[in-house]
Amino acid sequence: MSDGSDNQSSTSDLWGGRFNEPTDAFVQRFTASHTFDRALASHDIRGSRAHAAMLTAVGVLSEDECESINRGLDIIAKEIESSQFDWQVAREDVHMNIEARLTELIGDAGKKLHTGRSRNDQVATDIRLYLRDAIDRILGELTRLQSGIIDLAAENSDTIMPGFTHLQVAQPVVFGHHLLAWNEMLERDFGRLSDCRQRLNECPLGAAALAGTTFPIDREMTAATLGFSAPTRNSLDSVSDRDFAIEFSAAAALLMTHLSRMSEELVIWSSAQFDFIDIPDRFCTGSSIMPQKKNPDVPELVRGKTGRVNGHLVALLTLMKSQPLAYNKDNQEDKEPLFDCVGTTLDCLRAFADMVPAITPKAESMRRAALVGFATATDLADYLVRKGLAFRDAHEVVGKAVAHCVNANSTLEALPLETLRGFHSVIAEDVFEILTLEGSVAARDHLGGTAPAQVRSAAVAAKQRLQR
Amino acid sequence: MSDGSDNQSSTSDLWGGRFNEPTDAFVQRFTASHTFDRALASHDIRGSRAHAAMLTAVGVLSEDECESINRGLDIIAKEIESSQFDWQVAREDVHMNIEARLTELIGDAGKKLHTGRSRNDQVATDIRLYLRDAIDRILGELTRLQSGIIDLAAENSDTIMPGFTHLQVAQPVVFGHHLLAWNEMLERDFGRLSDCRQRLNECPLGAAALAGTTFPIDREMTAATLGFSAPTRNSLDSVSDRDFAIEFSAAAALLMTHLSRMSEELVIWSSAQFDFIDIPDRFCTGSSIMPQKKNPDVPELVRGKTGRVNGHLVALLTLMKSQPLAYNKDNQEDKEPLFDCVGTTLDCLRAFADMVPAITPKAESMRRAALVGFATATDLADYLVRKGLAFRDAHEVVGKAVAHCVNANSTLEALPLETLRGFHSVIAEDVFEILTLEGSVAARDHLGGTAPAQVRSAAVAAKQRLQR
Amino acid sequence: MSDGSDNQSSTSDLWGGRFNEPTDAFVQRFTASHTFDRALASHDIRGSRAHAAMLTAVGVLSEDECESINRGLDIIAKEIESSQFDWQVAREDVHMNIEARLTELIGDAGKKLHTGRSRNDQVATDIRLYLRDAIDRILGELTRLQSGIIDLAAENSDTIMPGFTHLQVAQPVVFGHHLLAWNEMLERDFGRLSDCRQRLNECPLGAAALAGTTFPIDREMTAATLGFSAPTRNSLDSVSDRDFAIEFSAAAALLMTHLSRMSEELVIWSSAQFDFIDIPDRFCTGSSIMPQKKNPDVPELVRGKTGRVNGHLVALLTLMKSQPLAYNKDNQEDKEPLFDCVGTTLDCLRAFADMVPAITPKAESMRRAALVGFATATDLADYLVRKGLAFRDAHEVVGKAVAHCVNANSTLEALPLETLRGFHSVIAEDVFEILTLEGSVAARDHLGGTAPAQVRSAAVAAKQRLQR
Amino acid sequence: MSDGSDNQSSTSDLWGGRFNEPTDAFVQRFTASHTFDRALASHDIRGSRAHAAMLTAVGVLSEDECESINRGLDIIAKEIESSQFDWQVAREDVHMNIEARLTELIGDAGKKLHTGRSRNDQVATDIRLYLRDAIDRILGELTRLQSGIIDLAAENSDTIMPGFTHLQVAQPVVFGHHLLAWNEMLERDFGRLSDCRQRLNECPLGAAALAGTTFPIDREMTAATLGFSAPTRNSLDSVSDRDFAIEFSAAAALLMTHLSRMSEELVIWSSAQFDFIDIPDRFCTGSSIMPQKKNPDVPELVRGKTGRVNGHLVALLTLMKSQPLAYNKDNQEDKEPLFDCVGTTLDCLRAFADMVPAITPKAESMRRAALVGFATATDLADYLVRKGLAFRDAHEVVGKAVAHCVNANSTLEALPLETLRGFHSVIAEDVFEILTLEGSVAARDHLGGTAPAQVRSAAVAAKQRLQR
Repeated sequence: MSDGSDNQSSTSDLWGGRFNEPTDAFVQRFTASHTFDRALASHDIRGSRAHAAMLTAVGVLSEDECESINRGLDIIAKEIESSQFDWQVAREDVHMNIEARLTELIGDAGKKLHTGRSRNDQVATDIRLYLRDAIDRILGELTRLQSGIIDLAAENSDTIMPGFTHLQVAQPVVFGHHLLAWNEMLERDFGRLSDCRQRLNECPLGAAALAGTTFPIDREMTAATLGFSAPTRNSLDSVSDRDFAIEFSAAAALLMTHLSRMSEELVIWSSAQFDFIDIPDRFCTGSSIMPQKKNPDVPELVRGKTGRVNGHLVALLTLMKSQPLAYNKDNQEDKEPLFDCVGTTLDCLRAFADMVPAITPKAESMRRAALVGFATATDLADYLVRKGLAFRDAHEVVGKAVAHCVNANSTLEALPLETLRGFHSVIAEDVFEILTLEGSVAARDHLGGTAPAQVRSAAVAAKQRLQR
Repeated sequence: MSDGSDNQSSTSDLWGGRFNEPTDAFVQRFTASHTFDRALASHDIRGSRAHAAMLTAVGVLSEDECESINRGLDIIAKEIESSQFDWQVAREDVHMNIEARLTELIGDAGKKLHTGRSRNDQVATDIRLYLRDAIDRILGELTRLQSGIIDLAAENSDTIMPGFTHLQVAQPVVFGHHLLAWNEMLERDFGRLSDCRQRLNECPLGAAALAGTTFPIDREMTAATLGFSAPTRNSLDSVSDRDFAIEFSAAAALLMTHLSRMSEELVIWSSAQFDFIDIPDRFCTGSSIMPQKKNPDVPELVRGKTGRVNGHLVALLTLMKSQPLAYNKDNQEDKEPLFDCVGTTLDCLRAFADMVPAITPKAESMRRAALVGFATATDLADYLVRKGLAFRDAHEVVGKAVAHCVNANSTLEALPLETLRGFHSVIAEDVFEILTLEGSVAARDHLGGTAPAQVRSAAVAAKQRLQR
Repeated sequence: MSDGSDNQSSTSDLWGGRFNEPTDAFVQRFTASHTFDRALASHDIRGSRAHAAMLTAVGVLSEDECESINRGLDIIAKEIESSQFDWQVAREDVHMNIEARLTELIGDAGKKLHTGRSRNDQVATDIRLYLRDAIDRILGELTRLQSGIIDLAAENSDTIMPGFTHLQVAQPVVFGHHLLAWNEMLERDFGRLSDCRQRLNECPLGAAALAGTTFPIDREMTAATLGFSAPTRNSLDSVSDRDFAIEFSAAAALLMTHLSRMSEELVIWSSAQFDFIDIPDRFCTGSSIMPQKKNPDVPELVRGKTGRVNGHLVALLTLMKSQPLAYNKDNQEDKEPLFDCVGTTLDCLRAFADMVPAITPKAESMRRAALVGFATATDLADYLVRKGLAFRDAHEVVGKAVAHCVNANSTLEALPLETLRGFHSVIAEDVFEILTLEGSVAARDHLGGTAPAQVRSAAVAAKQRLQR
Repeated sequence: MSDGSDNQSSTSDLWGGRFNEPTDAFVQRFTASHTFDRALASHDIRGSRAHAAMLTAVGVLSEDECESINRGLDIIAKEIESSQFDWQVAREDVHMNIEARLTELIGDAGKKLHTGRSRNDQVATDIRLYLRDAIDRILGELTRLQSGIIDLAAENSDTIMPGFTHLQVAQPVVFGHHLLAWNEMLERDFGRLSDCRQRLNECPLGAAALAGTTFPIDREMTAATLGFSAPTRNSLDSVSDRDFAIEFSAAAALLMTHLSRMSEELVIWSSAQFDFIDIPDRFCTGSSIMPQKKNPDVPELVRGKTGRVNGHLVALLTLMKSQPLAYNKDNQEDKEPLFDCVGTTLDCLRAFADMVPAITPKAESMRRAALVGFATATDLADYLVRKGLAFRDAHEVVGKAVAHCVNANSTLEALPLETLRGFHSVIAEDVFEILTLEGSVAARDHLGGTAPAQVRSAAVAAKQRLQR
């Protein structure tokens, strides 16, 4: 692989006819995109094959020319794959590098391939093909992660932990219930990415520079060949639209936000103070100076990468703001943020899909934590309601009981019945049952509640929905 | 309307039981949300009616209590509508202001309404109801704007203007084709907003604080009463999820990006230098100092408001980043950005739906501009291809002809046939036909192309798709 | 206070001369800014007084006219203060509302006030005056917060807590040292805001619409009167520049990021699991459903408000992107984000300045936590280095000792000397001294280190630097 | 250059002591940073030399060890420069790759280099050294661009063009005045970047992991050796602070916003409709399909790259939001955005510094445009004021005259005196002088105004300020 004549100024062979001086060498490098848009090479070749087949079908190319184009593209594909391809900055981008090489290889037929198309519709097609593939891979990793989470949830349908609001102990829940909340987030992500995939799956080929072409093209044919659901409907829009990149990045940003929330919890749960889980050593790293450290690097790094994807979303929105139609050079800036969103999302999902199922919940430690912080106070209030108090009155009674415990350094369940009855006389012996952790979680026995039975059936249903 | 005892410190009646000192007066104001979340009042009342009906159906409330709750809520709704409601900072938010007032009005039954719910699931329900309504209104204005654009496009299916890339004259197009490109953008926005509406249309009521409730609630009933497609599936997720706000804001940001692109074009087209359109005086304003000014304020302001919505999207993504489950006070910050996204989007769509159909295209001026800049040079290249040249060779021939014209201060169609033939001998008399603007646009006669016939049928099809 | 004839369409008296139809009623509301830019009223009046004085000094206004203008502005100031001012949407903005009212009050002299200026330089002046004042108030609250932090640090110069990296126990530090880290962040914020204040403190008055004015104005005089360090240097730049708003928002976003980091720590430290601090009840709130809850609302809300300020920064950057000179209506969108950045920053600083000094550190609990997690392992490695090992070898020896303790459920200091010597024979009796928490913190006795003596002198120096 | 054993799982030699299983191979790649942080290699080596010298001065290293370290670092520096260095993923980052290689080369002395430091203070030092250098280079390019702009401005101090507000012709200005507005923006950028440089120029070395070190280090010495103005003041802050990256990115985002505004103007001015300037062919590119195109790629691409830098700023702000002290793995994500901000800013400045001075203003075309759109209407209003009318009345009179001209398709200066006097009788023969473009610009003869004399002296003063 070489980057060709980077330091030498030249005018493009591709459009130099009307120009009086060669392009400035720095400008050539500054405006070239082949260093990153080569990621589109396989999609570009695929698009060119479909275009050539269509031009042949409508009689613009001969069968021989088409064959020779395909043969040339075969060679180029191999050169690229094996890093033998001679990328040249003077050829600007992936499209022109491939076309120029094709002409070197097969002569005049190569010069005919660009008939009836432009780089504007070509790159729009390439990115859509690229992104469609990327989404499919992301959906695969997402499903793998969901599957791991659901299995772990099913195994922990009666592992009791404190549920938190404001990072204060709120009410007991089961660990499996918490994990299924994660799954809900990811299931929405799956839906958003699928919607995005469907919306982008239209073929811009044939829009040419901006207005369509004077050749008798068959847009239905290229669309079908490339697996698109239909051709796009307006040529100006086809070359200026980058909605798919923004919609995808927004979906990725939300997905990363979800991973950041899980990461935060994993980091907090891994602290010596919480000690709710153990992350296997193979997902952790140590310190260059502190010999005792075992750091939850994976969730931390994933949490940090959220910023990156948010940033790319902002980059793309800023990029498109106020751009007049149809195509402007600005749009070249769509690729790097998009590619990095794809790569980041894939890597983070892969790391989580590997790591999450390997986490060991520390049931004893979780249970101990649930016993602190009056987690069953709401159960007591509900108990009073069932005994006839209005909820607001019951809430106040329990508030006072808790204040008493705080001062007495006690817990509700440790108070003698007498003392409890001092707060309200309807309290009876049966109160101690509802003050237990098991009683509390079991009592939330409705769709979406944390009762172990509910969690078990929720896990089964979630697993079934994965068969999509 | 009054804002009650803002300067006096007090402990909440609603949760004060366990507290030893009253809330700091500034903290009370700082943490209160009633100044903005009152926008949810009607949805909060609607949700309370559904909750009360369900509690009655399952036997937690009596029929009498339910009736009296509904009566009380009737009064409160009227008080709020007529700005007679006494909002109190000590009651923190819309929920507690309404509940406390209800208890003032109807006594004990008011204190029972909160049975089996929490503010956490209550506010999640309120916002979803609010946003569902807001999306419906936005979709209405969007459709009105699309309708106006399509009609204007149909009227201008043969109004020729220069199509631009890089703001340089590229190829002639018809104005109607350009307008239909706008419609494509908006049609995708409609799709994204509809997907968002569908995904958010699930009912969190019953999740209570985070874990569900110990009362025998019927979540299917409240969901159905409130027009949701189903109850949500996990209580922890139900109270911590703000995906809908982010997904909506992302869709709004993309919609605003589209409006910013249209705005940019309207502003450029209104300049004395382009002079492509006239915006009626009623949509413009003048200058306090320059008596001659007529400024395209509406598109400029809409363009500026894009930043606002992008900003809110970032605010919401930043807000949710790294939040552990289930509910944290941070989430109170979800409302103002969301409300402003809704208001901004609605206003901008309304302004555009009023203004765009009233624009007068200046056909003569557009046509004159299309004659400058060698807009039909590609047609000449395509002509040469049809005469047998390879496209790359044809491109180079035309490039040289253009360079000649630039130096000779001529146009391609003004060159004598002899001169043209000097660039390539296949050029014949028939070349002049393809060099005309009409010839050029008519030749792009395929799906998505700018040929007037295509534009006319595209407008008809677009109008039909509006019947959704 | 009334908002006048909002529903009735009219043409502006201020620029209607060349217009053929009245402004659309919705457009009038949509484009009007008086609902929010009235926050600039006092600065607008101040600017008008300076402008009138200058016009009088150069002979454009008579002394009588100037006096009558000042009298009129006195009345208007009072009307606005007492909410008696009749804001009218047809008068668009704060400037024209005040000018029109002035003419109502004092007649022809009012019509002369706009001589030699435009709303473009007027609003630029107003915002700079507003922001200069706002920064001064913010610097005041910032100093108050810093002062509280430093005092608390001084009191806790030997309160030992675990220092964390990756939220894992790393090395012991003193709580005062941690607090002084907060102070460092805030001190940089002070510097950034001061730089911003200095850079914005130039007077745009006299730039008029964009090109300056034909009247013999004295720009040095208005600049001096208004307390600016100089007039701005270029009229086009003066009316198009919004750098100050962006620079301020960026500084505010970084300040809020710092507060979000402190907030995160306050929330984590308040959890039952860490239990490092107590936040007084008056800064906390409870739950509508869970009677036992005491939530750290203030830090949570501050943490959430970070998103808001980040969002405004993005809004302003997006707003200004690609705007051609000189002034565009888009710029009206600069105010609301800026105002909200100011208000949010001020409120959050005030809340923190009240709350932080009231926090109670729980020294026992902190100390207990520092004893877990091998916090002095690095001290052991350093000990070995002092005994002659290379650091990398020492690190490895200690790593193995820690692994042994993890398996044996022991701590380093609890191991018998024999066992320790099993890891390396240079270990002697004196090792136990360096394994204590006190020994560890005292040993980091250099500038910036956590040794109590260093922290004490750092607190003194920090307090002195507050005298700025 | 090789990337070593990427596919093989291993435990770090650097911290593996306490670990039970090797790091997962994917996790190793996922968490490693050497692929990008090698950009810090020369700064890392520089920092190590300073650290070694200091350790020697305080007696921790011997002279021989220090010498051998320097010799080893010399070799490594050459290996890296010549791409012979064997980067290994198992060594994670630039620091450990260099240290491990050093130990390979020089043995035990290499293992001692890490005494008294940690990667946490090491990387903080490296980035500051990197960024300080980067800012110096950026300031150089910025100065070169400013110089070119000022020269072009001086040459065009009487080239008249229309000044625009709302992209509508407002008042005539001279082209040099417009260019000096650009210079003002850039001068503020220079100030902001210089402030940032000064604030970051403190040395974190000695903070070690987070708490300082037990060795008798001399932080003043390392700070001085590395050209820092002082050591940092708090060890926890030193390793957790990334303010400099955010402050720099914010300054870069504002700089790019300025370049985007200039770009927008260059693009609009290059359009056939405006035709105000010519950009030399060497800064433009053509089209693969339209043979006539000459596109202003450089300003378009620069405009597009604004989004990129805004995005990185958001990435960094999001990254740091809510991070507890001291160091978290998230922070590894600070580098790529920062590096790309630096590279993008440098490239864009270089492209502009090359291109802007080469622009040819088309004076005739600019002048023609200034004659359209009643650019001197304000001059007429000012004239009436000088004849005794109040400004508001004068404004209205001129508004009507303009309305008359619009209907009559005339210009103000083309109206007969009689007609003009029909609008107000004070108008006399001398009015025609003030209606000329030359009269209009010359009349704005005050500091910051567009009068050619003012522009000439402003250019001289601006050039002098460049000597900083």
